[in-house]
Amino acid sequence: MIAYTPNPELDLILERTVDVAPELVWKAWTTPELLVQWFAPKPWSTTSCEIDLQPGGKFDTTMRSPEGDEYPSSGCILVVEEGSRLVFTSGLGPGFRPQIAEDGFPFTAIISIEPDGSGTKYTATGIHADASSRKSHEDMGFAEGWGMALDQLVDVAKSL
Amino acid sequence: MIAYTPNPELDLILERTVDVAPELVWKAWTTPELLVQWFAPKPWSTTSCEIDLQPGGKFDTTMRSPEGDEYPSSGCILVVEEGSRLVFTSGLGPGFRPQIAEDGFPFTAIISIEPDGSGTKYTATGIHADASSRKSHEDMGFAEGWGMALDQLVDVAKSL
Repeated sequence: MIAYTPNPELDLILERTVDVAPELVWKAWTTPELLVQWFAPKPWSTTSCEIDLQPGGKFDTTMRSPEGDEYPSSGCILVVEEGSRLVFTSGLGPGFRPQIAEDGFPFTAIISIEPDGSGTKYTATGIHADASSRKSHEDMGFAEGWGMALDQLVDVAKSL
Repeated sequence: MIAYTPNPELDLILERTVDVAPELVWKAWTTPELLVQWFAPKPWSTTSCEIDLQPGGKFDTTMRSPEGDEYPSSGCILVVEEGSRLVFTSGLGPGFRPQIAEDGFPFTAIISIEPDGSGTKYTATGIHADASSRKSHEDMGFAEGWGMALDQLVDVAKSL
């Protein structure tokens, strides 16, 4: 895939180094039974996850609010670079089928996993159609939410 | 990528066997200087084309109507299987950035190129978000337009 250069007016980035090995971060992202343990920042939870890990494959999750409401989300895997990069989008569904967000906004995520000593440099980039979508995602708590999910991911990875 | 199974309620398909070799069909699709010669069914024309032939790369074209109006379109390459399959979408722009169609509808195209004797079995699949987008694309003349463009592609390929 292309070498992606973020656009600060349209993208949101979470970049951190964590003390688990890259292969465990990859495993936690790409194994549904592991992903459900960390993907939603508590007290939210993830009640289901289906991943078909190839371009055009589904990336489907359902999150549950503390009140018990469920929020299913269907996306499409775009790029699978084993152990180092995963790209998916909510702008397309399985089979690359365009899907139009009825509420909310579509976004693409690039998860980049690089070795850093015995740990991992982790970069999650959220790519939006326009500045207002970026702002909505930021106001929803992108930094806190994705940061807390990463803390949870690290706990899951360490338990493996 | 996944093995794609078309959905007749949401997809449009043009399938034909043409008497030019698969590698020439691939070349005509992926070389901007060639694509501008056949991409728009006459009397429309294609006035510019930029292709960055890798996942996340741009697939940009501008078509000109017989009246001289120009219609630029920006899309994203999703899959490049050299010589056999090209997938791109207007639902995302370059860098996999979601883009929201202001008018019209987004669609994904899978161009499949298979050897058939000395010729090529050519299949173009248009993938839409919903039945009304499929209908709009059909009413715009998908079958005639893509068919005429394929005739033009064959002429270009034979001239190489």
